[in-house]
Amino acid sequence: MNEQKQQQYLEKFFELIRIPSISTLPEHQGDVVKAAEFIKKELQNLGFSNVGDKSAKSMGTHAPVVFAEHVDDPSNPTIILYCHYDVQPVDPISEWKYEPFDPQIVDGNILSRGASDSKSHIMANLFAFQELNEEWGKVWPINVKIVFEGEEENGGENIEAWIQEPEAKELLKGDVFIINDSHFASEDTPTITYGLRGIAYFQLNVRLGSTDLHSGEFGGGILNPINALSSMLTKLYDVETGKVLVPGFYDDVIEISDEERANLAKVPFDEATFLKDAGDAPAVWGDKNYSTKERITARPTFDINGIWGGFQGIGAKTVIPAVAHAKFSTRLVPNQKPEKIKELFMDYIPHITPAGVTAELEYIHGGNGIMTDVSSDWVRIEKEALQEVYGVQPVYDRGGGSIPLSALVKNTLGMEPLLIGIIAPSDNAHAPNEKVGVERFLKYIESRKKFYQKAATLKK
Amino acid sequence: MNEQKQQQYLEKFFELIRIPSISTLPEHQGDVVKAAEFIKKELQNLGFSNVGDKSAKSMGTHAPVVFAEHVDDPSNPTIILYCHYDVQPVDPISEWKYEPFDPQIVDGNILSRGASDSKSHIMANLFAFQELNEEWGKVWPINVKIVFEGEEENGGENIEAWIQEPEAKELLKGDVFIINDSHFASEDTPTITYGLRGIAYFQLNVRLGSTDLHSGEFGGGILNPINALSSMLTKLYDVETGKVLVPGFYDDVIEISDEERANLAKVPFDEATFLKDAGDAPAVWGDKNYSTKERITARPTFDINGIWGGFQGIGAKTVIPAVAHAKFSTRLVPNQKPEKIKELFMDYIPHITPAGVTAELEYIHGGNGIMTDVSSDWVRIEKEALQEVYGVQPVYDRGGGSIPLSALVKNTLGMEPLLIGIIAPSDNAHAPNEKVGVERFLKYIESRKKFYQKAATLKK
Repeated sequence: MNEQKQQQYLEKFFELIRIPSISTLPEHQGDVVKAAEFIKKELQNLGFSNVGDKSAKSMGTHAPVVFAEHVDDPSNPTIILYCHYDVQPVDPISEWKYEPFDPQIVDGNILSRGASDSKSHIMANLFAFQELNEEWGKVWPINVKIVFEGEEENGGENIEAWIQEPEAKELLKGDVFIINDSHFASEDTPTITYGLRGIAYFQLNVRLGSTDLHSGEFGGGILNPINALSSMLTKLYDVETGKVLVPGFYDDVIEISDEERANLAKVPFDEATFLKDAGDAPAVWGDKNYSTKERITARPTFDINGIWGGFQGIGAKTVIPAVAHAKFSTRLVPNQKPEKIKELFMDYIPHITPAGVTAELEYIHGGNGIMTDVSSDWVRIEKEALQEVYGVQPVYDRGGGSIPLSALVKNTLGMEPLLIGIIAPSDNAHAPNEKVGVERFLKYIESRKKFYQKAATLKK
Repeated sequence: MNEQKQQQYLEKFFELIRIPSISTLPEHQGDVVKAAEFIKKELQNLGFSNVGDKSAKSMGTHAPVVFAEHVDDPSNPTIILYCHYDVQPVDPISEWKYEPFDPQIVDGNILSRGASDSKSHIMANLFAFQELNEEWGKVWPINVKIVFEGEEENGGENIEAWIQEPEAKELLKGDVFIINDSHFASEDTPTITYGLRGIAYFQLNVRLGSTDLHSGEFGGGILNPINALSSMLTKLYDVETGKVLVPGFYDDVIEISDEERANLAKVPFDEATFLKDAGDAPAVWGDKNYSTKERITARPTFDINGIWGGFQGIGAKTVIPAVAHAKFSTRLVPNQKPEKIKELFMDYIPHITPAGVTAELEYIHGGNGIMTDVSSDWVRIEKEALQEVYGVQPVYDRGGGSIPLSALVKNTLGMEPLLIGIIAPSDNAHAPNEKVGVERFLKYIESRKKFYQKAATLKK
C-alpha cells in the first residue's frame, strides 16, 4: 500500500472517529445517527444496494442497524459482516491526554475513543471493499451482507430483537456470520476467538428515606444506606477468595478441561505486561485455583462498575444520604444463562437487605456466552489471511468480553459466528486514551482483502 | 412584637440568607466574605466597636472570624457570643422544593439553606441587641464580645488555631462563652445542651492502577478497587451489630450511667417522629444494647458520608475504574480523642488492604466532644429566659453533633461553654429543604433579649 493511499485511508478513518457516537448517553443520540449516515453513504459509494436502517418492530426508534448488501449471484459464498459504529462514554474526561474525538497519531498509535473498539473494523472492511472493487469491478464472486450496529455499548437490545424477526431471518441468510469486534491476544498476535463470556448487568439502589440527613442528629439512630450498600456488596462477592457468593451462581459453570488448559496456555500471555496494561496494577488477583489467563476468559467474574452516594466534593460534609447506588456486572461462562443469573440475584437481594433500608435491584441487560467450532473452512481462510499479512501464526483464544449477539447468531440464525478483530489488551478500550496501532490497522485492510479473495475460492 | 417589626426582622434575616456562604466550596469563597461584611456592617450600626476580621497567624487567608465588642465597664458581666455564618453545600440540588438561597415562607416555616443552621442564631442576637439599644441606650450594663465564625461547616481550623493564640486569649476574657449553634429537642421543646459528641472525619482512596479498564478484558484478573473498597469498609463497621471494628476504638468510651439514662429518657423523643424526620426511614437501627436516643447522643457512630467511583450515568458501562473513594466519619463521645482515633484508623487500614490494590487514608478533620456543668447561674438564666418566652419547661439534652470549638473553650480559654440554639431535628439541617419555624425564630429574639436582661442582674 503506498503512502498516499495510507494517508487517504487514515483521513477517512478519522472522519468517522470524529463523530462522538456514544450510544449510552441520550445527548449523543444525534451523533449515533450521524455515524450511521456517514457509513451508509460510504456503502452506497462502494456499490452496495438496499442500503438502509433496520430496527426491531417492538423497539420503536433506537440507533438504527445499518443494513446493505452486495449480492450478484446467490449461488456464490455469502458472508454476513457485523461490526458496531457506536462507542463507549469518555469519562473520566480529565484522564485523556488528547480530546477523545480528535484523533492524534502518537508513537505509532492512533489515539481516540473508538480507534480500536470498533471503528477500526468498520473502516478496514470498507477500504478492503474499495480495493476489491478495483480488482473485481462491479460484479463480485462473493456476496456480502452488512449488519452494522449502533448500540453495542448500550446493551444491543434493538439488534437482538430484530434478528429474531422474520425480516432479519430472511435477509441474513448466508454461509458465515463474521462478528468483527474481537481481539488480538497481544498487539502483534493475530487471533481467532472461539469462546466469549456472557454478561448480566445490574443496578442496586439502597434507600434509607426521602431526604439527606445530618450525621450529628441522626447518626447511630438509623442505618446509613452507604454503610448498608457496602455490606450488601460484600455478601455478593468475597474479595478474599474471588468468588461470587450468590447461591446457585456456579451451578451451570463447566469446569475447564485439561485439554483447554493446555490450549489457553499457548496463547501469549505475560503477567507483567498484563499488570502494566492494567495501568501498573500492583498484583494479579482472584480465585487461586485458576491461572490469570483462565480467570479473565474462562471463569465468571463480579465487578462493581460504578458506585455513588452522599458527598463527593472537596473537604467534609457530615451527611447521611437518602440513597446510595451501585452498578455491578458478572461475566458469565458459556453454559451460564443470564436470565437464570438475573433470577438468582433478584431472589438473593431481599435475603441480604437489612431491615433499616429498602433495596431495589434493576436488571440492566444480559447476554449469553458462546463457544464455536474451529475446524471450518472459514476459520482456515481467516487464519491464512492473518498469517500471510502479519507474518505470525495466529492463535485460538477465548475472549473475556461479551457479545450477546454471538449466541443469537448460533441459536436463532443457525450460523456459526466467526469472531475476529484487532483490539489488543493494551488498547484501553472502554477507558481513557483508547488507541490502535497504525500499522496493525493498515495491515488489517490487507488481511480483510485477502480473506474475501480466499472466500471467493470456497465451494458452496 | 408588632407585625411591622416582625416583617422588618424577617426581611433583614432573608438578606443574610440570600448570601450563599458555603465554606466547603472554593467557588463560594467570595460569598463567605460577603456574609462577613454584611454582619460587620450590622454590628457597627448596633454600636459595637473594634469590629474586624481575625484569623490565626499560622493559617493564612481563610474565612475571617468576625470579632466585635460592646464593653462599657469591664466590671460588668462579660458574655462571649459565638455563632457561625457559613452554611452547608446544597447538593443534591434536585431535591430542593425551592431555590436554596431564595427563602420562602411555607406552612409557618422559613425554607432555605442556613435558615436554622445557623443564620437564625446570628440574626436573633442582632435583633435582640437592637431592642436592648432602645432600652439601654449607648451604655450597656453587660459586656458582649462577638466571635462569628465563617468555616464551621468546613472543619473550623482557623478559629481553632486562632483561639489558642495570645491575641484571642486576651480578647476573649469573659464570664461565659455562649456557643449558639445547638438545638431544640423538638420544634416546641426549648433545650440546653450539656454534652456534645466529637468527630473524626476521613477520606479513603483505593487505587488499582493509573487507568480505567474494560471489565471484559481485565475482569477476574485484577482486583476491582470498588470491590476492594466496599470490602474494606465492612471491616471498619459491622452493619449487623452497629459496632465499629477498628481495634481499640471503644477503649476510651465511658459507659452511660443509670442516672444519665434516666435523664436522657426525660427528653422528648418519639421514635415514630424520628423516623418521619429521617425522611420516612423504614426502621431505627444500631447497637441493640442502647436506646435510639442514647445511640444518637451518647454513643459513637460510623457513617460513610460519601462514596464514588466508576460509572454513575444512565445505562451500563462495563468499566473497572482505576480508583474508588469513600468519605467516612465517626462521632465520638466526650472521653474519646480524635487524634487517638485517627492513629487507630491509620494503623488499621494497612491490615485490611488487599495486596491487589493500594489504599491511602486521609484525615480530613477532628474535634473533641464535651460535657458541661448545668448548675451555673448562666444555665439558670438561660433556662428562665427560654421558659418565660416559649412557656415550656426546657430540657437538658446531649447533642449528637460535634462542635470542636466547645472543647477548646473549656480547655484553652478555661470557660464553661453554654450550648444553646433552636435547630430542631426536623429542620433538615445539612440536607435539602432546610427550614426553621417563623414563630420559633421570632420568639428566639425575645428569649435572647431576656437572657441579656437577666445577665445584667448577675453579680460578677
